[in-house]
Amino acid sequence: MKPIKAGLLGLGTVGAGTYHVLQRNQEEIRRRAGRGIEVSMVAVRNVERARKIINSGIVGSEVEVVADPFAVVNNPDIDIVVELIGGYDLTRELVLQAIANGKHVVTANKALLALHGNEIFEAAQAKGVMVAFEAAVAGGIPIIKALREGLSANRIESVAGIINGTTNFILSEMRDKGLDFNTVLKQAQELGYAEADPTFDIEGVDAAHKLTIMSAIAFGIPVQFGSAHIEGISQLQAVDLRYAEQLGYRIKLLGITRRTTVDGKEGIELRVHPTLVPGARLIANVEGAMNAVLVQADAVGATLYYGKGAGAEPTASAVIADLIDVTRLATADPYSRVPHLAFQPTELADVPILPMDEIRTSYYLRVTVQDQLGVMADLTRILADAGISIDAVLQKEPGEKARTDIVIITHQTREKYVNAAIAKIESLATTVGKVVRIRLESLG
Amino acid sequence: MKPIKAGLLGLGTVGAGTYHVLQRNQEEIRRRAGRGIEVSMVAVRNVERARKIINSGIVGSEVEVVADPFAVVNNPDIDIVVELIGGYDLTRELVLQAIANGKHVVTANKALLALHGNEIFEAAQAKGVMVAFEAAVAGGIPIIKALREGLSANRIESVAGIINGTTNFILSEMRDKGLDFNTVLKQAQELGYAEADPTFDIEGVDAAHKLTIMSAIAFGIPVQFGSAHIEGISQLQAVDLRYAEQLGYRIKLLGITRRTTVDGKEGIELRVHPTLVPGARLIANVEGAMNAVLVQADAVGATLYYGKGAGAEPTASAVIADLIDVTRLATADPYSRVPHLAFQPTELADVPILPMDEIRTSYYLRVTVQDQLGVMADLTRILADAGISIDAVLQKEPGEKARTDIVIITHQTREKYVNAAIAKIESLATTVGKVVRIRLESLG
Repeated sequence: MKPIKAGLLGLGTVGAGTYHVLQRNQEEIRRRAGRGIEVSMVAVRNVERARKIINSGIVGSEVEVVADPFAVVNNPDIDIVVELIGGYDLTRELVLQAIANGKHVVTANKALLALHGNEIFEAAQAKGVMVAFEAAVAGGIPIIKALREGLSANRIESVAGIINGTTNFILSEMRDKGLDFNTVLKQAQELGYAEADPTFDIEGVDAAHKLTIMSAIAFGIPVQFGSAHIEGISQLQAVDLRYAEQLGYRIKLLGITRRTTVDGKEGIELRVHPTLVPGARLIANVEGAMNAVLVQADAVGATLYYGKGAGAEPTASAVIADLIDVTRLATADPYSRVPHLAFQPTELADVPILPMDEIRTSYYLRVTVQDQLGVMADLTRILADAGISIDAVLQKEPGEKARTDIVIITHQTREKYVNAAIAKIESLATTVGKVVRIRLESLG
Repeated sequence: MKPIKAGLLGLGTVGAGTYHVLQRNQEEIRRRAGRGIEVSMVAVRNVERARKIINSGIVGSEVEVVADPFAVVNNPDIDIVVELIGGYDLTRELVLQAIANGKHVVTANKALLALHGNEIFEAAQAKGVMVAFEAAVAGGIPIIKALREGLSANRIESVAGIINGTTNFILSEMRDKGLDFNTVLKQAQELGYAEADPTFDIEGVDAAHKLTIMSAIAFGIPVQFGSAHIEGISQLQAVDLRYAEQLGYRIKLLGITRRTTVDGKEGIELRVHPTLVPGARLIANVEGAMNAVLVQADAVGATLYYGKGAGAEPTASAVIADLIDVTRLATADPYSRVPHLAFQPTELADVPILPMDEIRTSYYLRVTVQDQLGVMADLTRILADAGISIDAVLQKEPGEKARTDIVIITHQTREKYVNAAIAKIESLATTVGKVVRIRLESLG
């Protein structure tokens, strides 16, 4: 059978990784797919640099290198366009053009899909082509496939994931070495684990892109990045990691999405924030730059998927798996292919994403107080009045005289009740500064 | 679109689970698959009991219940036969007959596929039908899909899994409570975690069935159950779990399959046995009846898949995912479907399974010795002469006077060298009884 022809947009880290793995494992891939997958055209800004990468491969002379990505997208000989440029303006245009030309698309671009996924999937559906994006979430872990196909018998209840390696690396280092955020960030940048401008990672935006995609697939709803609640780790203090540890928890940046019912109405939680997780959970023990996704579903129960969430070859692994899948399903009746968002496009549900006020979870609260009789009684009274029950309390001398840190772990409650209670606690004369509030998930 | 019609063979734990999940989640499944999946016929030994199970469902009146499984297999209205009977004589006949009748087959039967997989897949290939078996390995964890599709870009290097819940439950309890094997087995039987005749589980046969299937898929070789090395946990002593713990390891029953090179020739290791694993590894922390599979592959690196490996609904989750996949791929060009053993049938490799003498791993050795000068020197001399280097030594008084337990962790070596060294150690006048030898994998 003739090899399928792929055109690559971009030959950066992931693009070069994809090219090299396709070359190195071409036999293995052909033995699986039943036909070869050939990169016949590459579009890059720096054509000279690209030629060097390609010539370092086993065979490469037949690859056409161009500067104009539209030359790939409009080339009638290309069967599949592989978008590995990043960003969401030019790539939106390129992907829509590829679809209009009747080409299948494989992309690793989470931002593009989190922002323009609905438009792109609709165009692809109308044209009868596939847009595959395993590499957009959790790198080489086949989590899109697991959610969309592996668990297709289930009503999925929740997805909770460590889906940003940079922040997990930073949190692991902060905990291990007792260092503060800024010190570790600087080290991470020196080691190449964090980018020069790390905002997207450390502020949770990258994780929210990925979570938005998983949420859509898990629950059969459109992608709704605009409704995601996003908090990063840059405000986390080393002292809270230490206290969490003493209480038997670890702090992880989790992306959490969950079905819930508020006042009798269905809603979906969609949130990225630092989270206390019981130390005994497997996911609490995912260290360094690794990713893991925990899925709760009605029939199968809890399943967990772990691996490298970034990097040239782990991401290439997912890109190429998509290439093989697309090659395979290209011959199937379009209606029978795996739907982009797991559910048939006519079957997406209209369940609202909940505002944060309405979510239910537990909380870690740290209150610094003046060491005075009756302080604890005041705090516990405020929480009791708000209907918030207490799971654990830790009292610590932070080193400053006449001050005490009181750490409270609450049982589950609605966020708006906690926020109201915090406002009251902060208005007490004995409270010093702001209350630190970190959400806690038992993931039981 | 018309619902697809499935015929169920067997309505035991997994059969009833499959029936119930298909009923409960029929809307969710239809929204995903684009068409309904309907159980229209069930074959069971006890027709009355089956009617009760079916009538307890939401809709069930249209299900025909028969005593003769061949009536399902030969019914022209059935699209997919779901074999959930177990055993490998009658089921072999039924599955081959279903294939001959041009029906797709979904099965949870690991024994059947480990023993007769090659014959069955060949028949299916010739007839252009699919045999799907996600439920045969690790219950609800979509590990077949991950190995066969999710990691299809990779050269897979090794698979190591906790793939039998009964034995993992027993080992967790032995470690937790310091109890011996027989005591815990009895408790496990009372709790329903072990069967009345637990031989297949505790002696590693069930794990070897599953490992055989994963090995074939990972490396593109035929199923070769007859060449698997199988050791269970019934001979494990509580003292060795304790010593392992003191050295920083846990003992798990692992199924391990790995590419290797011996004397310049390619070979594949295929073995189930108790294994020491460093306590810090995620897989070492998989407790109770849970399953986990760790895959090493060249592009993606290490990935791990965790979840429930047995039970009515976790297994049903996998059975139904297969039903949906088969429904979907039924419309694809047969050549483009996912090959049964991951690689195209003409592309299976002829790499031999290695005899145990040739495998390379590390070892835990416990030698009980008479407390005498020079004993340690004798032991270490024997190992050094055999070219085996030592990673750690632990010396313990087992409580009997004038005796000492010497525990040695070796670096990697070939099994035949260790066995030869053990024979020499056992022939020493100072050695009491047999040397306990447990393999160790760093899984790094």
